Amino acid sequence: MPQVLKRHYGKLKATSLTDLGGGGVADLISEMARRARQILRATKRIELSSDTGKSYFSFRGEEQSRPVNVALYVNNDREFARLLGLFGSGFTGATTDEIVRATYSIAFSVFAAHDVNQIGRKTSATFFEILIGHLVSRTIGVTPRTKVTIPESGAYLPTDFVFDPGKHSRKLHLPIKTSTRERAVQAWVHQLVLERIFGADEYLGVLVVATETKRNSKTGNVIEICVPGQFQMFQSRVTKMSRIYYLDPPAAYLALSSSHPQVDVRPFGEALADIRQLLSAR
Amino acid sequence: MPQVLKRHYGKLKATSLTDLGGGGVADLISEMARRARQILRATKRIELSSDTGKSYFSFRGEEQSRPVNVALYVNNDREFARLLGLFGSGFTGATTDEIVRATYSIAFSVFAAHDVNQIGRKTSATFFEILIGHLVSRTIGVTPRTKVTIPESGAYLPTDFVFDPGKHSRKLHLPIKTSTRERAVQAWVHQLVLERIFGADEYLGVLVVATETKRNSKTGNVIEICVPGQFQMFQSRVTKMSRIYYLDPPAAYLALSSSHPQVDVRPFGEALADIRQLLSAR
Repeated sequence: MPQVLKRHYGKLKATSLTDLGGGGVADLISEMARRARQILRATKRIELSSDTGKSYFSFRGEEQSRPVNVALYVNNDREFARLLGLFGSGFTGATTDEIVRATYSIAFSVFAAHDVNQIGRKTSATFFEILIGHLVSRTIGVTPRTKVTIPESGAYLPTDFVFDPGKHSRKLHLPIKTSTRERAVQAWVHQLVLERIFGADEYLGVLVVATETKRNSKTGNVIEICVPGQFQMFQSRVTKMSRIYYLDPPAAYLALSSSHPQVDVRPFGEALADIRQLLSAR
Repeated sequence: MPQVLKRHYGKLKATSLTDLGGGGVADLISEMARRARQILRATKRIELSSDTGKSYFSFRGEEQSRPVNVALYVNNDREFARLLGLFGSGFTGATTDEIVRATYSIAFSVFAAHDVNQIGRKTSATFFEILIGHLVSRTIGVTPRTKVTIPESGAYLPTDFVFDPGKHSRKLHLPIKTSTRERAVQAWVHQLVLERIFGADEYLGVLVVATETKRNSKTGNVIEICVPGQFQMFQSRVTKMSRIYYLDPPAAYLALSSSHPQVDVRPFGEALADIRQLLSAR
């Protein structure tokens, strides 16, 4: 069964960027989520304690999965099928709540199926990049690139997804991470480098993150690893990220959106409509 | 025997920053190096192959140590004792060659003794910070700090060692790493943050690194992991590090000192005299 999941992942990874926003990718992602949930049926559900004020559980097979948010993960198969349908249609007419529950449930079904079968975190991270990249590409109707040309040398600079809708629009720089930990700085640095190559206000920096939860392996307790002071320092001293979207936003980060220095952290359900608007605003 | 090494390390780590440049720290470091070499006497020396154009070996005890550079590591005990004497006197009158061989041999004796006894890399990294911090503090006669005050909030920003010789001198920002790998970006980002708090040309950024060597665990071959294009990108698009000193400099990085964008990479033997001069230049 994990082999089927791996085979679909292989196909997904081999998809060209031109097709990232297309129906073929949506179908592959949906199929992976369905297979993942079949795998998870054979596992046990373990309730986890947490000080975050949110409820979490793990799937336990050979290994125990990362924590899954009870409120965001859709357990009911019929409801999940309905949400997959919305996902397949590019979330046309979907509410922010449906968008976030669908995206969270797709992502964490696959993450958990990978975890219980000891499939490495890199695979889950790449799957998540493709999932979010697909949604954004489909929403704005633009094919991303993963490199930009450095003017003075003509060399390519490898980047996260960048979307360029054309001359009369801002461009989008879209780093995507399952969690940031000590790697958040990379998003700000890449944003700064783009700004220094192409000028300020040309690329909007939008960071999408799944969660900052971590299970303390001794106590089993679910914690969120947050460094709000560092986010604020990057924002005020390195460069400005326009938005940070979380599937499962930590309260400590949401609070930064009404703090100074401000970091505009929001739930992912709002991301797609926001990005469309951000790109058209001038 | 590893317990004695650990006990000395504990004392070294507990030393206050005020005493970092003092004789007590020099004595503890020397004692650790001597103990480390006693431990290593019970190990086997394994020659390693390498494509770097340099010769390396490993000590093998319970575990195999990281690669050690044959040309830089002083094997002879009388010669090592002589170099320890020079180290103990703050390298007064020492040649650049003596400085680098003494510092390399002290560092890699301790690293290797840690490695063969499965003492974690964090311990070696902290030892190396103290060793280099001691030498610089002693050379310029200034006590470092490891935080700066953020003007607008009064909060402390944790930093690598920063040295402030007083109002009429530049200050020094001194990140120290056993190797950089994907973490080099941190030095540039912290330098940028200091620049944006205190203004340009106030803090000189000087990065000190031991080596970029790594043993391929399958082939046993010693390689150097270098990303010269990234160093140049950080230098041209993030901010300017004044110098990067290596105990065992990779050729690919030394070449950057005569390239454009320039990254001024030099052998560590020159660091102490250079830093003294850099700080006094205005």
